[in-house]
Amino acid sequence: MSFGYEDIKAAYDRIKPYIRRTPLETSMHLSTEDKKYSFKLEPFQTVKSFKIRGAMSKMTTLTEEERQRGVATISSGNHGASVSYAAKILGIEKAQIIVPATTPQAKVDKIRYYGGEALLMGKNYDEAHAMGMVHIESNGMTFIDAYYDDPKIYAGQGTIGIELLEQDPDIDTVVVPIGGGGLITGIATAVKAIKPDIRVIGVQTEACPAMIKAFEDKVFYEEYPVTGDTVCDALVGGIGKLSYEILEPLVDDIIEVKEETIKKAIVHMALNEKFIVEGAGAAALAAVIDEPERVGGSNIAMVVSGGNIDSELFCSLLEEFKDRV
Amino acid sequence: MSFGYEDIKAAYDRIKPYIRRTPLETSMHLSTEDKKYSFKLEPFQTVKSFKIRGAMSKMTTLTEEERQRGVATISSGNHGASVSYAAKILGIEKAQIIVPATTPQAKVDKIRYYGGEALLMGKNYDEAHAMGMVHIESNGMTFIDAYYDDPKIYAGQGTIGIELLEQDPDIDTVVVPIGGGGLITGIATAVKAIKPDIRVIGVQTEACPAMIKAFEDKVFYEEYPVTGDTVCDALVGGIGKLSYEILEPLVDDIIEVKEETIKKAIVHMALNEKFIVEGAGAAALAAVIDEPERVGGSNIAMVVSGGNIDSELFCSLLEEFKDRV
Repeated sequence: MSFGYEDIKAAYDRIKPYIRRTPLETSMHLSTEDKKYSFKLEPFQTVKSFKIRGAMSKMTTLTEEERQRGVATISSGNHGASVSYAAKILGIEKAQIIVPATTPQAKVDKIRYYGGEALLMGKNYDEAHAMGMVHIESNGMTFIDAYYDDPKIYAGQGTIGIELLEQDPDIDTVVVPIGGGGLITGIATAVKAIKPDIRVIGVQTEACPAMIKAFEDKVFYEEYPVTGDTVCDALVGGIGKLSYEILEPLVDDIIEVKEETIKKAIVHMALNEKFIVEGAGAAALAAVIDEPERVGGSNIAMVVSGGNIDSELFCSLLEEFKDRV
Repeated sequence: MSFGYEDIKAAYDRIKPYIRRTPLETSMHLSTEDKKYSFKLEPFQTVKSFKIRGAMSKMTTLTEEERQRGVATISSGNHGASVSYAAKILGIEKAQIIVPATTPQAKVDKIRYYGGEALLMGKNYDEAHAMGMVHIESNGMTFIDAYYDDPKIYAGQGTIGIELLEQDPDIDTVVVPIGGGGLITGIATAVKAIKPDIRVIGVQTEACPAMIKAFEDKVFYEEYPVTGDTVCDALVGGIGKLSYEILEPLVDDIIEVKEETIKKAIVHMALNEKFIVEGAGAAALAAVIDEPERVGGSNIAMVVSGGNIDSELFCSLLEEFKDRV
């Protein structure tokens, strides 16, 4: 697989008509005379997540034959909703999103609202994935991978890097959450091409530090276990192959943050910044809260990946942390 | 005073470089096969409120002499923060925002953060206003009125109407909260000029139905009492002269909504739509919840005026209504 800044620029040209240029908002609460902290706010993106950038990047390159076969993916989260939405916008008639039968109704409704079919298979994600891949292959559908193997998806996520430096060319540090690594690999490739001395800091939850361990152990962890509870569904599981292959020299540090701090960061975002963000979206702020010196920089952009948080979780975190932010 | 669509178009040209084109977001939760409901999301505006549109519209027309004298206003809310911010962006060195001495520290901090001076005067808004006007006149400063008498402010607020119909030309009904009336007068002037058969529905809180009573009684209520508690600081008090003079033929209906419904609408916005909005920002949705038939239309845009809600209020509303939306 080859992947570089040119791919990201090309992706940006393709997806620009369909996505929002999300605001870069400076935090009054965090900034000081010496340090400016800003949020790149993907909760304001269409479908409330950066995932639409990757899905749109991929789906704008499909051939007529691939479109005719219909698109499919396996995801109950932001990627699934993004593929459903992108298919509608791009006029692809058939879009099937495979989710575990245990998926909450709200997520199923969302997929259907955007126009795709939600197919319930298996009793967990692994089963859904196994059964889903068989379904997709036997029906000859066009598979839209969440990110693991597809440079076009990485290129879409990387468009955030281009926007960031257009919005504030003086940014010297970018802090990005890491799940599979598609987001940070795309962004790091873009910003280091545009501004080679910029620093890129990754963030993982203590519940699943797969990328940190992969680089330490020099092992491609395609799967990785989750330890304990997490509020960041989007940051657990294994890492992407392309990320494993190219990310290490592009990232200056990866910080592991506590789940407790991520929870606090979600509540800070709601009560002080007035934005509702999902767990993964608060991870970059958690790193700034826990280790401001290690994050460093004087003009720091935190990438807030999305805004889809479960209502019950949001209310309970607010209740628990409202007097502590 | 004269005021028309040409003023709004001119204002839009002036303020475009400084403001955000806020998203028009379709609600998955409210829309049905027959009816499309969307939110025009000014919580994503700079300073988290539409008020920056009016302040910027006015302040981009100041003469060099007026800029040199410095700008001043009396407002502890979104207008004050907007004038402070606009002065910084436009390079106006002196900006004084007069607020009552009882203003919460968070609001004072916000004004100062944007670069203006916060001057504390009097123990309530009326005293602050009286003392502030003396201060402004005796110091020869340029007064930036919140909206009551200045067509340039109305023209700025009206730019939302232009954006709305650019974003979706098929909108047939626009629902707008009414405090002093600057927002709805600007928007109605714009959208009815562009699309004469569009319907404009105003919304007032039962706590202060000043515009409804003004039209009923044929009296210009420059001041109007507040009855009971309200969660909509921005929707109480008297109405603007220009609104009183020109709004009536431009508005198809004005709906009075219950405070209880506005509270519920704030929680609906947070938990279902994932946006934090202030009380006034939820008023249009409250009208749709309480009286969907009277609101009518098949493609309905609700104007969400801003996102600055007090944290304690937000948490207590969530606690009270989380199981009822």
